[in-house]
Amino acid sequence: MNAAVDVYPSRVAAPAGFLPRKDPVVYRDVRLGQPGPLTESEIAFYEENGFLRFESLFSAEEVAGFQEELLRLRDSEEMKRAQEVILEPQSDEIRSIFAVHKNNNVVFRRLAQDRRIVDRVSFLLDSPVYIHQSRINYKPGIHGKEFFWHSDFETWHMEDGMPRMRAISCSISLSENNEFNGPLMLIPGSHRHFLSCVGETPENHYEQSLREQEYGVPDSESLNWLVDRGGIVSAKGPAGSVTFFECNMMHGSNSNIAPWPRSNVFYVYNSVENVLTKPFCGLAPRPEYIASREVDVVKPL
Amino acid sequence: MNAAVDVYPSRVAAPAGFLPRKDPVVYRDVRLGQPGPLTESEIAFYEENGFLRFESLFSAEEVAGFQEELLRLRDSEEMKRAQEVILEPQSDEIRSIFAVHKNNNVVFRRLAQDRRIVDRVSFLLDSPVYIHQSRINYKPGIHGKEFFWHSDFETWHMEDGMPRMRAISCSISLSENNEFNGPLMLIPGSHRHFLSCVGETPENHYEQSLREQEYGVPDSESLNWLVDRGGIVSAKGPAGSVTFFECNMMHGSNSNIAPWPRSNVFYVYNSVENVLTKPFCGLAPRPEYIASREVDVVKPL
Repeated sequence: MNAAVDVYPSRVAAPAGFLPRKDPVVYRDVRLGQPGPLTESEIAFYEENGFLRFESLFSAEEVAGFQEELLRLRDSEEMKRAQEVILEPQSDEIRSIFAVHKNNNVVFRRLAQDRRIVDRVSFLLDSPVYIHQSRINYKPGIHGKEFFWHSDFETWHMEDGMPRMRAISCSISLSENNEFNGPLMLIPGSHRHFLSCVGETPENHYEQSLREQEYGVPDSESLNWLVDRGGIVSAKGPAGSVTFFECNMMHGSNSNIAPWPRSNVFYVYNSVENVLTKPFCGLAPRPEYIASREVDVVKPL
Repeated sequence: MNAAVDVYPSRVAAPAGFLPRKDPVVYRDVRLGQPGPLTESEIAFYEENGFLRFESLFSAEEVAGFQEELLRLRDSEEMKRAQEVILEPQSDEIRSIFAVHKNNNVVFRRLAQDRRIVDRVSFLLDSPVYIHQSRINYKPGIHGKEFFWHSDFETWHMEDGMPRMRAISCSISLSENNEFNGPLMLIPGSHRHFLSCVGETPENHYEQSLREQEYGVPDSESLNWLVDRGGIVSAKGPAGSVTFFECNMMHGSNSNIAPWPRSNVFYVYNSVENVLTKPFCGLAPRPEYIASREVDVVKPL
């Protein structure tokens, strides 16, 4: 078990409900007044709602390059056998590929360092960052399955030992996200409440949870409570749009029976002042390709 | 096997692809020029696209009465044991209740006769009608599962022996349908093509298919073909809105992880000149509560 004090206990026997957030949302002292990559209203919106959207932050030409790489990875025989590849729950279609910023992948390693992303994240966290996790989510058309509601931080805290809330997820859409193909859904304001979830973590939980998650998910009453307060927004828009969201945001997505895939590349930036300790669930940490324990500071390019 | 000539063969061994529609869409001879319940442009839209939407055709007060009855049925101990009740594929939540216009159900029997519905349907089919099937679809919030793409006519033809395309489905929403809670999705124009599906019908197929359908569903290539031509529209709107759609429309819906249920009541009106014969799949007909073999002409009220 982790000797550090656990300020966000979860995977408990009886429902503990919501615990107050004990960490800032915006770490940067905005009174400093230095020019930064975000406007005052963007910063205030992020603090209040827990996310920020930028339409077409990447050009169509850039996106075409990312898409080409996405397809190359999907169709490479090598990847089909790689441990970084997660299949859909009921088929052998690729659901996700992890650690795409490693594995000598020039395209997605370069993208992870892009200033348009890293400068914004570092500003909000007021810190240099490293990549805690990266992945491509394919969410194919016609048979794309849902991602049930969850807070990423809850999992990273319990299963990876991320001590505090000082990380930001960044989802870059590689295909159009529309109302039909199961776009990312966010509950605004949910990042301000930590939901302590019910149920002990099984050993090697990730082998199942990355296909279909059953532990570390909210009960119906808690979910209703959050949605009654914040509603739901979906991250629709053209390919190349970017959604930043706070690590404790409650999010998920419906299935996709439309014939259009809903692919994205997903990077999690963690502050170098928030490095992983032992998992708070008391089990062994997840593999390096799912949760990096190496702190390799990202240099913005 | 049915001795009648099968103009729409399906459940075949090898993909036969699309067969041309051999039946009118609008049966009424509109040159008659009599005043009817639909405008010229509504009739033309239906012929072209295969559906018609009417927002708030029923008032909030009327909807409140339907909702009350919906909940009463869901919570009645008697219904939980009734054969008319279909459960969700992975839980014991109620997915659908069939034959709601029977069983001494005053509310939903009365609704089935409502002039606002029946007059429009009888006009388009140019015929008195009877109810081939009725059901409530609950699609609960949070754990509502998808309905995969299908043409109802394909199933009714193969498993119930409906000879020709002369029936209209009518979906009355009993809760708001929005982009988050898995609204009905339709492929405009798909009613003009009959997709002959692959795979022999298993015995008692309905016991499985009403929870999760595997036979009589389109292959990916055919689905792409339809969507490339017609796109997708979703039936969003307030409770009390009504969607009429032609029996051969390709339709489906994504899962619903939002906490809002997406309930509707669904009536299928078939022309009295299109009564059922033996199922074209060669098996025994489905039970009366799923596909009525009694022709009980609907009197508009």
